[in-house]
Amino acid sequence: MAPAHWGCCPWLVLLCVCAWGHPKPVNLGKEDVRNCSTNPPYLPVTVVNTTARLKALRQQMQTQNLSAYIIPDTDAHMSEYVGKYDERRAWITGFTGSAGTAVVTMGKAAVWTDSRYWTQAERQMDCNWALHKEVGTVPIVTWLLAEIPAGGFVGFDPFLFSIDTWDSYEVALEGSNRVLVSITTNLVDLVWGSERPPLPSQPIYALQEAFIGSTWQEKVSDIRSQMQKHQEAPTAVLLSALDETAWLFNLRSYDIPYNPFFRSYVLLTDSSIRLFTNKSRFSAETLRYLNSSCTGPMCVQLEDYGQVRDSIQAYAAGDVRIWIGTRYTTYGLYEVIPEEKLVADYYSPVMMTKAVKNSKEQALLKASHVRDAVAVIRYLVWLEKNVPKGTVNEFSGAERVDQLRGEEQFSSGPSFQTISASGLNAALAHYSPTKELNRKLSSDEIYLLDSGGQYWDGTTDITRTVHWGTPSAFQKEAYTRVLMGNIDLSRLVFPATTSGGMVEAFARRALWDVGLNYGHGTGHGIGNFLCVHELPVGFHYNSIGITKGMFTSIEPGYYEDGEFGIRLEDVALVVDAKTKYPGNYLTFEVVSLVPYDRNLIDVNLLSPEQLQHLNRYYQTIREKIGPELQRRQLPEEFAWLQKHTEPLSARAPGTASCTSVMAASILAILSWRA
Amino acid sequence: MAPAHWGCCPWLVLLCVCAWGHPKPVNLGKEDVRNCSTNPPYLPVTVVNTTARLKALRQQMQTQNLSAYIIPDTDAHMSEYVGKYDERRAWITGFTGSAGTAVVTMGKAAVWTDSRYWTQAERQMDCNWALHKEVGTVPIVTWLLAEIPAGGFVGFDPFLFSIDTWDSYEVALEGSNRVLVSITTNLVDLVWGSERPPLPSQPIYALQEAFIGSTWQEKVSDIRSQMQKHQEAPTAVLLSALDETAWLFNLRSYDIPYNPFFRSYVLLTDSSIRLFTNKSRFSAETLRYLNSSCTGPMCVQLEDYGQVRDSIQAYAAGDVRIWIGTRYTTYGLYEVIPEEKLVADYYSPVMMTKAVKNSKEQALLKASHVRDAVAVIRYLVWLEKNVPKGTVNEFSGAERVDQLRGEEQFSSGPSFQTISASGLNAALAHYSPTKELNRKLSSDEIYLLDSGGQYWDGTTDITRTVHWGTPSAFQKEAYTRVLMGNIDLSRLVFPATTSGGMVEAFARRALWDVGLNYGHGTGHGIGNFLCVHELPVGFHYNSIGITKGMFTSIEPGYYEDGEFGIRLEDVALVVDAKTKYPGNYLTFEVVSLVPYDRNLIDVNLLSPEQLQHLNRYYQTIREKIGPELQRRQLPEEFAWLQKHTEPLSARAPGTASCTSVMAASILAILSWRA
Repeated sequence: MAPAHWGCCPWLVLLCVCAWGHPKPVNLGKEDVRNCSTNPPYLPVTVVNTTARLKALRQQMQTQNLSAYIIPDTDAHMSEYVGKYDERRAWITGFTGSAGTAVVTMGKAAVWTDSRYWTQAERQMDCNWALHKEVGTVPIVTWLLAEIPAGGFVGFDPFLFSIDTWDSYEVALEGSNRVLVSITTNLVDLVWGSERPPLPSQPIYALQEAFIGSTWQEKVSDIRSQMQKHQEAPTAVLLSALDETAWLFNLRSYDIPYNPFFRSYVLLTDSSIRLFTNKSRFSAETLRYLNSSCTGPMCVQLEDYGQVRDSIQAYAAGDVRIWIGTRYTTYGLYEVIPEEKLVADYYSPVMMTKAVKNSKEQALLKASHVRDAVAVIRYLVWLEKNVPKGTVNEFSGAERVDQLRGEEQFSSGPSFQTISASGLNAALAHYSPTKELNRKLSSDEIYLLDSGGQYWDGTTDITRTVHWGTPSAFQKEAYTRVLMGNIDLSRLVFPATTSGGMVEAFARRALWDVGLNYGHGTGHGIGNFLCVHELPVGFHYNSIGITKGMFTSIEPGYYEDGEFGIRLEDVALVVDAKTKYPGNYLTFEVVSLVPYDRNLIDVNLLSPEQLQHLNRYYQTIREKIGPELQRRQLPEEFAWLQKHTEPLSARAPGTASCTSVMAASILAILSWRA
Repeated sequence: MAPAHWGCCPWLVLLCVCAWGHPKPVNLGKEDVRNCSTNPPYLPVTVVNTTARLKALRQQMQTQNLSAYIIPDTDAHMSEYVGKYDERRAWITGFTGSAGTAVVTMGKAAVWTDSRYWTQAERQMDCNWALHKEVGTVPIVTWLLAEIPAGGFVGFDPFLFSIDTWDSYEVALEGSNRVLVSITTNLVDLVWGSERPPLPSQPIYALQEAFIGSTWQEKVSDIRSQMQKHQEAPTAVLLSALDETAWLFNLRSYDIPYNPFFRSYVLLTDSSIRLFTNKSRFSAETLRYLNSSCTGPMCVQLEDYGQVRDSIQAYAAGDVRIWIGTRYTTYGLYEVIPEEKLVADYYSPVMMTKAVKNSKEQALLKASHVRDAVAVIRYLVWLEKNVPKGTVNEFSGAERVDQLRGEEQFSSGPSFQTISASGLNAALAHYSPTKELNRKLSSDEIYLLDSGGQYWDGTTDITRTVHWGTPSAFQKEAYTRVLMGNIDLSRLVFPATTSGGMVEAFARRALWDVGLNYGHGTGHGIGNFLCVHELPVGFHYNSIGITKGMFTSIEPGYYEDGEFGIRLEDVALVVDAKTKYPGNYLTFEVVSLVPYDRNLIDVNLLSPEQLQHLNRYYQTIREKIGPELQRRQLPEEFAWLQKHTEPLSARAPGTASCTSVMAASILAILSWRA
């Protein structure tokens, strides 16, 4: 999945949305949108009446003496996806898109969102809400300065602001005589009341031993030893991201769609482990697993989730130094730690350690990709048969591939909302069809599938783009150049700890050569039954040095606005490279094992090295997936695999001319001898 | 010249020195170094007695109640090279190397420098001084904390500290109960007294119209229009870097070795131009040229150089906003501007504008490179004849090439100290021979020449590496892979404003492929009779987006410690790329026009595209330099050029096998027919 909508790292969202430019929203044929300029306004049935909600919210604002209140789209852990009970912005506005910020003043209300959601917002919001087709802090603050009086207070929930977001508002409001006010009681929650979906109560469970890379005790010891080695001598590590807690304790649950996490924080010191969550969700067995009945250094003390701020504040009163990852800790915790007691790194040691998989974690992730390839291949075979019949649409296709993944062993649902996009919809980076709004798949159009699964052993993410008919020459060229970029980056040999940003352009060069490019990032980390977009691995400038044992996606693309879209995404493991001269060099081993579409490859564009790499990859797919298909008694899929992984060969100009020269010579000789 | 010792950007110095690792200093056969562990200590004749100087300095420190005083190696403009009168660190320590920081306490004195200078420091410093083989703020502060008491004051000259340097000391000393004290009167200068070399007094002159890209009035108007467009509404631009003033007014002088600049600052507002310098150095004609007798918006008011701090402070008292380039403005000016009155960008608008050459500046720079190529070719021809005789050493070679450049039209001396390095010395990135310490050139060794010239029309910088005998297979491979990197980056097509850091790896990939690499940057900007290392162009992460009209060096290398070194450096202009599909894409046009060494190229390693690019480059050299050599009646050089730019061709394996297949077939046919 292209790393634009990167919830684990909300800063990147803006970056990527900007980089995409503003692709025009595609007319799906059902644009039944509001019209607030008529009297009375026209409101489609999809609109939510927010008048009462807004009135109640403004009463709360008045109580707090606020001129404005900001309602972001995230949760208290800066999660990529949020639970229903955290969809405050959706509830107060009616607009359910995953990205967008709402601001309410005493007289007005407005939403800022990017082009992906403009139509949806016009279909869902009533005329209480203005839609601003911009993102970022600056347009919001510019609006605030015009709307609220000097001396006005702007309220926000500090648990829904990252440190950077808070900072960007502070900077933008500086000297304006409008003051940002942190209010820990969320005002939307007060108004939402009993309508608010319940907080999660499902069990929090420990992973089976077969699916963990290390025990939680080993992980805790490792983090503690990193604390001891740190030159700023932290006394504690504070974990805020939900995948940090899930990874550290090998615990999972169901709080967040697509992410098997549970609401929690951790304060880990040399002598204690405090897990802030809902204790009632643990079975007696899991409590024993956590040693929760004692208070020693290897006992996990369970405390109430809601107590975290007070507890951190109390802890910070001592002679302590608290180590945090500033990229995803919220201002709600940051503001209670005095600056001189902060050890502030971009990423916590848990995030850094988790990024490098040990050999067991590597084996687990690879195994999940073998099963995932079977599901995707079954889907591609099914499409090949059913698309020509005209019976498949984007939504039914998405359902089908989700179902096929669900049939795989250890499956635990999709790892993100399946992107199933035909024709011009494939040009939209994060398009997902709905039951109501979708496009029929056709042999005349390119089809893009970007999807992944959660399995107990690993998280997967793969994109394939196919065409069952006759692609245009330009489509073939664009596809082949995207493939060349994928291959060039995959086969790159580079010094250990090279930063991702330094090598990303290898995935773009084949496109650049002819004046083409793509507007999103080239890859992201991925976890073992964790985030599909796992910090901090990737090819961005702020990604950390590439290290042996990391997994990253490699996913160049090309998007022709209003026409078609191409993306080829594989997940790859960082491995040692064998170089002619000794040195600490790395390369990638691709673990996604599904062939590309031969119908879209112009073999003659590939260099001999690219062709060799591709054929070697196909050989690997045959070796790893072929036996699995046979074992599973899927003869049709096996035959399809053989056909689609036949070695490719170029019509080499050298060979051609050699042949003609030879033919001519032989003719000459023959005639001479005759 | 490899951009490691980057005075215009002192932050990079540290970065690059670190990246180099610590190559062992080479034993030049004359290591007559001090020995402070004997009694009495052994001191070579090259040592300077600093006892009296230190005593006098400590008296000054006592007057100011200082526990320590820091003496950096730079000047008040963060210049790459400094004038003799600014060599304070050299005078107080005896150590004349260009990089190194001294710190004096009441009881001790120490110098921190990198491996290039360790031997030189041991030859020049007496036993008053300890040598610390480290660089950066942290080791100095660690030492300070051990040496000076709590509550101690650490003095520094704010005009010799960049904002970043000051900040790094502040951060490192935070909470240590040692306080950094800014003292604007330099204590070394007080002690230096009449021994200090005089401040420059040579005329400051205006460039002839033929050598300027725009008049100073046009440049001033352009900068003012940028001020008006800036969203933070600056009322003034403050210029601190010497090449900013030189460029803005088309003025030059001789204050700094290798750089035709003069000591100055500028405060440019919408209604005034204040040039802080030494007025007595201007002729009446130049004063007229500057409109210095009036006070209107297009009149340059000359003020005393020493008044700059007071004047800025006075100006900053008003309702103003001062726009500075934070990368090279000193703390001495920064600290007198209240934070809310700063418009702080990395680079001033002058630096940004200067980086993009207009068409006349491009033509001028290209013309200087044609003459420069003639000088370098004459030198290579001379070497080819004289090295086998055994009469050339690194120093006499450097003198020879400097002299040949001096014979070129518009020459104004070398643009940096010529790097003329044979055999193992070529593995040292910034080695320069001296009359006393040098190595004889030999047909058995690789020789590296990195040199450049200042001409009235342009600044040049080129590196060629040659071998007149039989290079080893490894040397040929390394050389060819460096060349492949140079070609791959030179021929890259990329979107306009791509950052340099994103494409730099193309210069490294051919080396990475086999486990080789180099530890310095890949390029830097260059000026029109200005800095040879011109900010902010280049391939570093913090370099700005690559824009049409910029000039940059492209200079991959390979260094085998203690054996040999290779670097191939060209200067290239950023030009539009013609792409198959329309778009705003760029590529490079190489303007250095000297062939590489055929003797070191393994043609069979080159891809067909690289070979084609190389032959096209050779064709360009023939077209541009051939006629020039003929015009100058240099037949020997012309013949050499023809020989060295003969098109190269690979022993293509395809052709070879084709031939053998054909031969075999013909034999078969013949035998069959027989």
